[in-house]
Amino acid sequence: MTKPFNHVAIIGLGLIGGSIGLATQAALPEARVTAFDASEDVRDRARQIGLAHEIMDTPAAAVDGADLVVLCVPVRAMGEAAAALKGALKPDAIISDVGSCKASVAEAITAALPGQTVIPAHPVAGTEHSGPDAGFAELFRNRWCILTPADDAPAAAVGQLSDFWAAMGARVEIMEAKHHDLVLAVTSHVPHLIAYTIVGTASDLEDVTRGEVIKYSAGGFRDFTRIAASDPTMWRDVFLSNKEAVLEVLQRFSEDLSALQRAIRWGDGDTLFDRFTETRAVRRSIIEEGQDDARPDFGRRDHSGAAKDQPPKN
Amino acid sequence: MTKPFNHVAIIGLGLIGGSIGLATQAALPEARVTAFDASEDVRDRARQIGLAHEIMDTPAAAVDGADLVVLCVPVRAMGEAAAALKGALKPDAIISDVGSCKASVAEAITAALPGQTVIPAHPVAGTEHSGPDAGFAELFRNRWCILTPADDAPAAAVGQLSDFWAAMGARVEIMEAKHHDLVLAVTSHVPHLIAYTIVGTASDLEDVTRGEVIKYSAGGFRDFTRIAASDPTMWRDVFLSNKEAVLEVLQRFSEDLSALQRAIRWGDGDTLFDRFTETRAVRRSIIEEGQDDARPDFGRRDHSGAAKDQPPKN
Repeated sequence: MTKPFNHVAIIGLGLIGGSIGLATQAALPEARVTAFDASEDVRDRARQIGLAHEIMDTPAAAVDGADLVVLCVPVRAMGEAAAALKGALKPDAIISDVGSCKASVAEAITAALPGQTVIPAHPVAGTEHSGPDAGFAELFRNRWCILTPADDAPAAAVGQLSDFWAAMGARVEIMEAKHHDLVLAVTSHVPHLIAYTIVGTASDLEDVTRGEVIKYSAGGFRDFTRIAASDPTMWRDVFLSNKEAVLEVLQRFSEDLSALQRAIRWGDGDTLFDRFTETRAVRRSIIEEGQDDARPDFGRRDHSGAAKDQPPKN
Repeated sequence: MTKPFNHVAIIGLGLIGGSIGLATQAALPEARVTAFDASEDVRDRARQIGLAHEIMDTPAAAVDGADLVVLCVPVRAMGEAAAALKGALKPDAIISDVGSCKASVAEAITAALPGQTVIPAHPVAGTEHSGPDAGFAELFRNRWCILTPADDAPAAAVGQLSDFWAAMGARVEIMEAKHHDLVLAVTSHVPHLIAYTIVGTASDLEDVTRGEVIKYSAGGFRDFTRIAASDPTMWRDVFLSNKEAVLEVLQRFSEDLSALQRAIRWGDGDTLFDRFTETRAVRRSIIEEGQDDARPDFGRRDHSGAAKDQPPKN
């Protein structure tokens, strides 16, 4: 076990930043937690709900004395957020982030803060909600956090950051930034783009009203709308920052979709059946790995009964 | 209120058939419920868990004396299942079904049972699980059930079937079969095809292992795998039976995806941001309509805490 951080500073108090603030206070009671958000409304709200011990009105004040600074802003805002800390940091402070793309973010932060130790990180966790009220201390529990240190990153700093994320309840993995970006293009970025697309397609049909789409959404569509409810700024930035990997995976997806489309057109039931059978095995593995549970969520039935549904309107 | 059915027969005891058996016994205690399934194992299991009052060994025995027969088999098996009832039905028995495509199913059942009253129906409800153990009585509560009676269908029979589904807890809607098939292509069939596709794409990459896809699935992918875990036979039949509408919606989806792909390639952040903002409104409407709840499901946190997650393995 490495030396725990004495003072953690968080820049950006949305879902992830707020959750880190709460989780750090819960898991590391000895550590001081300070934070900043560019929005005054968010800072006020963060003070009310105690996302950090102290919410500062400038980024420089928030990072003063901190030995870990975590940037929790949209990925294309990372460089600017890092630049705002220049001159205010302890020389041995570790700078990290939580962005969903790592190669471009590492480059932007390193360029903004030359000489500072930068260890990019990505906790693979979240909900479809955003903003300071969306956070909760257990968000990272049993989720993976991927660190993408550069080859010359000091091992002690990597160890300290690993232990920090383990204290948040996360399982830590080390990966090359470029590989991270490809893996996440598959497991997160392209699924989000597809969800956004089909929700848009459904809204634009002439022969099916938006009311009908909403009424009959329990047939599968509503699960896509949950994904497509995620923060637009964050996701715009992700797609622009991880362009190469996203376009590569999209190309393959389109080819695979064309193959199934062709099977439907030509009545090739065997191809459909075989493909649909293979995908079941992936689902089973995800449940075995503890990354989801096996409860039948389409029924949205938890074990306390179906009472959370609203009563019928007619 | 019309006269309730005295005797309901169910053919096929998977998720939907089993749930109808349980829901009918709970909601209509005066009615007799009989059932048949082509699989002896399923019949044995259905007897153990009481999906109906009596599970028969032939379809003819199951429908003997019934005034409502509900066919709950994959859509391309409907015609054969209906033909097996020939000569065993009461002349005034109403024949219905639960298939996810209505035009082709109505045609197959009507052709197999000339002279019989056929009122197709589709409860828009389900889970990713299948088989006799997957059913539960509350599955249809607050979900929509769409009836697609032919123009010359007797109004009394339509009323009786509507009241039956209302007793199951469903909200009932009447629709033309062809329109139903288009609406469901959008809200259910194409979303399932897309989910099956991306899960397949992810499994086939050379540079990302299947283990990585599974480990980091919490970034969005795991929600697709849940949809892609649905019954392969059922879904193969749906795509082949609703070919025209599915191909039409797929074509539009592909165009919309190409537009976003182009925006990513050319760095057009405004197009992405605008699209991602529109889709949020759809999500809000679905929650307001009571078709989903607002809990942050990506965190998979229910109000009893995060204890359902398995402990970390390392």
